[in-house]
Amino acid sequence: MKTIDWVNGKIELIDQTRLPGELVILSVTDSHALIDAIKRLAVRGAPALGVAGAFGVALLAHSQRSAEMVRTGAAALRAARPTAVNLSWGVDRALSRLDDGPEAVLEEALAIRDEDVAACRAMGERGADLALALVGDKPVRALTICNTGGLCAVERGTALGVIQTLHERRQLERVIVAETRPLLQGARLTSWELERMGADFHVVVDSAGPFLLARGQADIVFIGADRIAANGDTANKIGSFSLALAARYAGVPFVVVAPESTIDLSMDHGAGIEIEDRGSDEVLSFNGIRTAPEASHAINPAFDVTPRALITAIVTNQRVIRTDAGESPSRGVAAP
Amino acid sequence: MKTIDWVNGKIELIDQTRLPGELVILSVTDSHALIDAIKRLAVRGAPALGVAGAFGVALLAHSQRSAEMVRTGAAALRAARPTAVNLSWGVDRALSRLDDGPEAVLEEALAIRDEDVAACRAMGERGADLALALVGDKPVRALTICNTGGLCAVERGTALGVIQTLHERRQLERVIVAETRPLLQGARLTSWELERMGADFHVVVDSAGPFLLARGQADIVFIGADRIAANGDTANKIGSFSLALAARYAGVPFVVVAPESTIDLSMDHGAGIEIEDRGSDEVLSFNGIRTAPEASHAINPAFDVTPRALITAIVTNQRVIRTDAGESPSRGVAAP
Repeated sequence: MKTIDWVNGKIELIDQTRLPGELVILSVTDSHALIDAIKRLAVRGAPALGVAGAFGVALLAHSQRSAEMVRTGAAALRAARPTAVNLSWGVDRALSRLDDGPEAVLEEALAIRDEDVAACRAMGERGADLALALVGDKPVRALTICNTGGLCAVERGTALGVIQTLHERRQLERVIVAETRPLLQGARLTSWELERMGADFHVVVDSAGPFLLARGQADIVFIGADRIAANGDTANKIGSFSLALAARYAGVPFVVVAPESTIDLSMDHGAGIEIEDRGSDEVLSFNGIRTAPEASHAINPAFDVTPRALITAIVTNQRVIRTDAGESPSRGVAAP
Repeated sequence: MKTIDWVNGKIELIDQTRLPGELVILSVTDSHALIDAIKRLAVRGAPALGVAGAFGVALLAHSQRSAEMVRTGAAALRAARPTAVNLSWGVDRALSRLDDGPEAVLEEALAIRDEDVAACRAMGERGADLALALVGDKPVRALTICNTGGLCAVERGTALGVIQTLHERRQLERVIVAETRPLLQGARLTSWELERMGADFHVVVDSAGPFLLARGQADIVFIGADRIAANGDTANKIGSFSLALAARYAGVPFVVVAPESTIDLSMDHGAGIEIEDRGSDEVLSFNGIRTAPEASHAINPAFDVTPRALITAIVTNQRVIRTDAGESPSRGVAAP
């Protein structure tokens, strides 16, 4: 099942606001409905948004009478989440074929979809091979955080894609899922994906992850990445750093899985990465119920930075960068 | 303000189930109402339960016609939370004076109350002195987890008691409070106490604590303890270990504050401490709303064990044990 796809002239996408309670597939027939779905986070995750943007342009190209009207609609689509770089990228790439007609636009959008699936599949295979090389040829007990699965991409994900590949190869024993406060993407979304895979998993509060690592309850940690600096320092969901520290303490490999597009060679190291603070409400309320005194404030860093020294390897769709052997994204050896 | 006290022949206690939304003082006039308050966690925390048990016996001694009826009532009181060692201890200590009459029983209960206040005050002073010795003579930026304040004791607490003492001395700059999943004692209770003190504080998700330590956002970490082994290994609320790892990484002192009664010399080291798993529901639901798929399970260790090697010092009501200098509870030097 794909998180987002093109089916009989329409976009079909999983409404992630309804998970894990219900699996609802939205059928989107015009760009306004797509903009609404993007705004209310029914579809999320960088790769999925890229595909959504491209499919949105394909919808416009098939329904609007003039190229100008398509471009106007595309601009509105881009503005649905202005900070999502992939959304604009997908819109623009599909638009680039507009002069060749609606079918060419759709063809480009389908290519973006297929490239994402292929990239995730490549990361899955490469990451699974690495896991067995690091851990030994036995079923793996993995630990992960946030949602890095098919729900943030098209069909398979990054870190969770590796875990899925291990599961399909019957080389996965079980998964520990950090719930991922404040928004609980681990408990809500990763659990849902693992359940559908039929994998054995347990959810833990985020601060239990480090202790369970120290107690030998996992053989390897897989995380995704928001941004990777040239030296290998990795920004990812808050909580990743504490898992990396504990993995090092426990002697457990800590592996980052992300597409090449996540590597930012303009950034020498992680100290330069700006940490977004997402405000107090996410931390101090749950489903509209306040948990802390009214006057309280939170510090709410959306992600943290794990220094390269705590990372065993970075797996991309093109290569494995062994940071533990001195390699870095800017000086890594490209795999075939 | 005391969390629990004896006022005009009645027990008054703060109903902690109503915090932080409302401050409700329960007036308890018979032992059945007290049992109800204990069972629904309106009063909680080892020292507070010890005092509650003793006051409960004082209520019985003043209202029942025979010593036998007092003893029957006391047995019911003890059974309100059978695993709470302090509750039984408080009941028994008050009962030991029953032959001397109701006023003697009350006198014993009041002594327990006063001893707790004095012990917490001693820990506060000793811990604040240590903080300044470790951090340098400047206002301290502290980080803490769970609720270790007056709400789990009578008037002042352990780790939060040290922070309170620093605040009263005008030597506290600010506090970072880990929310403390799954039950959010940090966000709910510690925030409430800090707000009443007038201290500057911010709440964070638990996994942000380690990252903020690494980024130099706190000068010292204070935690309480559920149990301390003879070598200094310390069991405390889940999340303490990850803070200890990060404190070591950041070169920040990590200090345990707990009364001598927390030290268990029968336990050589922390590996012997049994970790209670409190089941899935606390992790996977919030206010009755399920956050993970129905079929999910959680691993829910109530506490973790921080090895003595990661602890700078243990502050008790009698001494400072410098674990960083090779001292341990079993071989420490008693302070006057």
